[in-house]
Order: sequence, then structure tokens, then C-alpha cells
Amino acid sequence: MKHVLKITVEFGDCDPSGIVFHPNFFSWFDAASLHFFRDSGIPSWRETLLTHGILGTPIVSTRCDFRAPARYGDQIEVHTCVSEWRERRFTQHHQIVKGDTLIAEAFHVRVFAGPHPDDPERIRAVPIPAAFREMCDRKYPPQQQASG
Amino acid sequence: MKHVLKITVEFGDCDPSGIVFHPNFFSWFDAASLHFFRDSGIPSWRETLLTHGILGTPIVSTRCDFRAPARYGDQIEVHTCVSEWRERRFTQHHQIVKGDTLIAEAFHVRVFAGPHPDDPERIRAVPIPAAFREMCDRKYPPQQQASG
Amino acid sequence: MKHVLKITVEFGDCDPSGIVFHPNFFSWFDAASLHFFRDSGIPSWRETLLTHGILGTPIVSTRCDFRAPARYGDQIEVHTCVSEWRERRFTQHHQIVKGDTLIAEAFHVRVFAGPHPDDPERIRAVPIPAAFREMCDRKYPPQQQASG
Amino acid sequence: MKHVLKITVEFGDCDPSGIVFHPNFFSWFDAASLHFFRDSGIPSWRETLLTHGILGTPIVSTRCDFRAPARYGDQIEVHTCVSEWRERRFTQHHQIVKGDTLIAEAFHVRVFAGPHPDDPERIRAVPIPAAFREMCDRKYPPQQQASG
Repeated sequence: MKHVLKITVEFGDCDPSGIVFHPNFFSWFDAASLHFFRDSGIPSWRETLLTHGILGTPIVSTRCDFRAPARYGDQIEVHTCVSEWRERRFTQHHQIVKGDTLIAEAFHVRVFAGPHPDDPERIRAVPIPAAFREMCDRKYPPQQQASG
Repeated sequence: MKHVLKITVEFGDCDPSGIVFHPNFFSWFDAASLHFFRDSGIPSWRETLLTHGILGTPIVSTRCDFRAPARYGDQIEVHTCVSEWRERRFTQHHQIVKGDTLIAEAFHVRVFAGPHPDDPERIRAVPIPAAFREMCDRKYPPQQQASG
Repeated sequence: MKHVLKITVEFGDCDPSGIVFHPNFFSWFDAASLHFFRDSGIPSWRETLLTHGILGTPIVSTRCDFRAPARYGDQIEVHTCVSEWRERRFTQHHQIVKGDTLIAEAFHVRVFAGPHPDDPERIRAVPIPAAFREMCDRKYPPQQQASG
Repeated sequence: MKHVLKITVEFGDCDPSGIVFHPNFFSWFDAASLHFFRDSGIPSWRETLLTHGILGTPIVSTRCDFRAPARYGDQIEVHTCVSEWRERRFTQHHQIVKGDTLIAEAFHVRVFAGPHPDDPERIRAVPIPAAFREMCDRKYPPQQQASG
């Protein structure tokens, strides 16, 4: 019941110690977050900008534990769900696994954001559209998680 | 009294929303962590592997808040200190600033690690050498931080 | 008859102009090159280092044309074959396509390399093992290409 | 008389073979290309979009030779000049050096591009403004290069 994104760890994802350079985990979490919304049926941000004044879900904060290394050639998966919805922010829970091994686990707080009405250069959090939340919850039921 | 690493944000560091793609912040924190040790006088990991059985300081966990965006052309700085030493782990505190603006702030827990005696493919945390800790503390006095 | 690697272009692969930041194409070519050998049946470089003194196929030179942009969400493919084998070097031909559209095309000259006998820090090109070449040719027949 | 961009090779720029993962060279060439124009006095692309309908200088093709490896901790420089101006395209010549050692050398063909008048999603090459060319030539005289 979680969203699953499959990834092959490539040679260039790894550093001189032979394991994944950890910033790449955040690239994969970010990809998983976006695919989660797309696969829930929420239109692209290009469309929601016109329909809802929403241009994306920028990250506000993260907590992440790195449990085990991954190496090139490894087939890994990012498992994603929402662990909490609030009025203007939500928490996505990501687990990267390799078979039965937990590689990394993160809680990302994000907002739905749109252009600031007073200054198009800035953005601001907007209330999360109920319809979007329902689409996500139907496809990937939220799961409370002990968050560390 | 903190370690300072200067960085220019490049075009390719930014994503289609025009701001730094956040995984790059973790690359910069990682570079700052390594420069912190080198600039404290600790030899390269190539040497410490031979002298102390230490091959680096892998990350165990992170907490990071993203406060304000950075854009290409921005001159930013990573300010780094140690906020806590324990027997086998330590916390580095990083702040990325642009002038007076705080862009991002992170607490990274790391260990000093070496090859596992039973399996050269694995690594394990080792006690932090007192001499290394003293070298760091002399150059960059540790600073307790409210860690969120 | 070419090797095909499927890739989804992610948000973070793109730059502020909204299209793929071109260095990422080289990461994908590199992944395709490695998968080409693995899928031809050639063992991992970890094994060939022991059996053949070969640690990989470092790149010597490239020529690449960028024909059309790719954007996030695009499903692209890297099509790879060998366009020329010589005694100590070979040329891999890569095409990145999106449906019928050619996005980028590259010719990469690479060598099979191993540790230098006089200095383990350096590497040197070694003759390409006939068995390796045959494995590749059987799976992905070489195709002469007008190379620009 | 060439533009010089100084770079420190970081741990995360390198791959499991311990040397720079070659796609990173293209990120550094790209940064050098942009700094070349800024340091010649050409305004940011945000401004030139309004004044000249120019949004940047996308790459059309590259040829690159990789001569020697670079490792983390290395201080390297990207030396950049223009080797040829044509009406709608130009060639930038980049050399990455470490002390007296040539690490990599590239010729990048680029265009000055702006939005296509018929379709804002597309771009097209525009004639290179004479004033821009003069600004570059005054600061960094073009140098003909044997291009391989």
C-alpha cells in the first residue's frame, strides 16, 4: 500500500569508498515524492499552477537515518507514504530497502507552495487542497509512523 | 571560530524552479565536513587508515531545515563546528548562509570508522582518537547548539 | 540488436531552463556502457580484476551532439552498440531517444584498463581479451556508424 | 589571457575508482562557460532576455579528451577562451589543468538562444550580438586552437 520506486544503483552514484554517496539518497527521495503525487492522480505542477496556484511541494525539513550501505549494481526500492497531513504541511515517510535490508529512512516535511501574491520571485505555502489529499489517501493510505 | 567553506552556486546546481536542488546542500555539507578535519590538521584518510585504522567519518543520521532558497550566482558559505563529541560518535553543525540570511541548517551525526576485523567488506565505528578531538577543538572550539 | 537502457528524466536532472542539464547525459551514457558489458555476460570488474587484471573501461575521449531537449517526466532510452574494436581501444556509440526523436548522440572511445605493473596508483590500457569481444559481438553485433 | 576558474575536487566528485567521475568535468566546463561571459561584462541571462531576447548559450556539441585523472583534494583550474566565432555559433575551448598537467580538454560548440517566436516552449539560435562578442574579445582575446 506504499508507493514503490525501483532504482538501480549505478557506478557513478558511488564515491571512493565504494558505496552510494549519501546526497544521492535525497535525489531518490525527491524523485519518489514527485512520482507519489503523479501516481496518485494529481496533475503535473505545470497544470496545477494554472488551476490551483500550486507549483510544487518544496521541502521544509528532513530527518534521515542511514542504516546500511548500498553499492553499484544493487537493486533498491524507495517505499513512500504520507505519515501526517496538516493544514499547510505534510510529512512523507521514505524507506530505501534492498531486499529485506533497510538502507535509509527519512521523514520529509513539505508544503504545497505557490507564487507569493506580492512578489512573483517569492513563494508561500498554501492550504493543501482537500481533493489532492483524498486522491493520495485513496491510492496510498496514510500510515502513522514512529518518527524517531 | 567556525570553519568556513565558500561556495558559488552554479546554474547546474539549480532545478527547474530556479533554486538550488536540495540534495546539493548535502554535497556541500559533506565537503565542509572533510575540509573541517583537514583544516584542523588531521591527516588524510589515506594516512589515517595506516596509522589509526580509520578510513573516514561516514554519516549516521541528519536533521536539516531549509530556511530560504539560494539561486545561481549566489555566493554562499558553509559554517561548520562540532556541537557534541561522544565516545564513538560526534555531531557536526552546519549552517549555510548568504550574507545575513540563513539558507539551511543541519546537524549530522557521524562516526570515525575503520575496516571490520572479521570482514574487510564491512566497516565499524571506532573510538574517536583523543588527539584528533584535541586538534579539532583547538582550531574550532566546539559550540553547543540548540539542535531543533 | 542494440543494448537499451530505459531512463525516466527526473525533476532534479533538469536545470533552471527546464531541460536536462547536459552533464547528466554523460552519467547515463556511462551507466549504459557498464550495463552493456554486464548484459553481454562479462563478469563484474571486481572479478575481472582477479582473472584478467582488468578494473574497468575508462573513457579516453568523447564526441557528442545534443539534438533536442528532454524534460522531466520524459521516458527516454539509451541505445548502445560498439562501432569499432581495435587492439587496445574501442568506440561505443550511444543514442538517446525519446520515442522517434533523437535527443543526443555520442561516440565514446574507451580502453580496458588495469593497474600499472610499476606503480599501483596508475593504470594502463591492456589488450582487449578476445573472449570479451566475442561475448559482446554475439549479443550486440557491432555496427559501423558514420561518426560525424 | 584566458578565463580561469579555480575548483577543488571534492570526495563526492569521485567514483569508486577514486578519480573524478567524468560527467563532473562537463559541469565544471559549463560553470566556466557562464563565468566567462559574466566576467567579460555581459549581463545575466535574466537581463539579456529582456534586452536582447537571449536566454543563454545552450550547448550544441562537444569533443573532449580525458588526458589524466584528478583525485579528491586536487586543486584544478579550468582555462577558457573562445576559439572561433561564427554568425550564429561559437566554439569555446576549455582546458582543465592541475599544475602543469593537462587533465582534460574540450571544444564546446554553443549558440546564443532565445524563445522561438512561434512557440514559447521552443528555443532557437539568434545572431550573436556584435557588442557581446566585442566585450568577450577585449577581455579574453580569441585564440585559434588545433581542435584535434
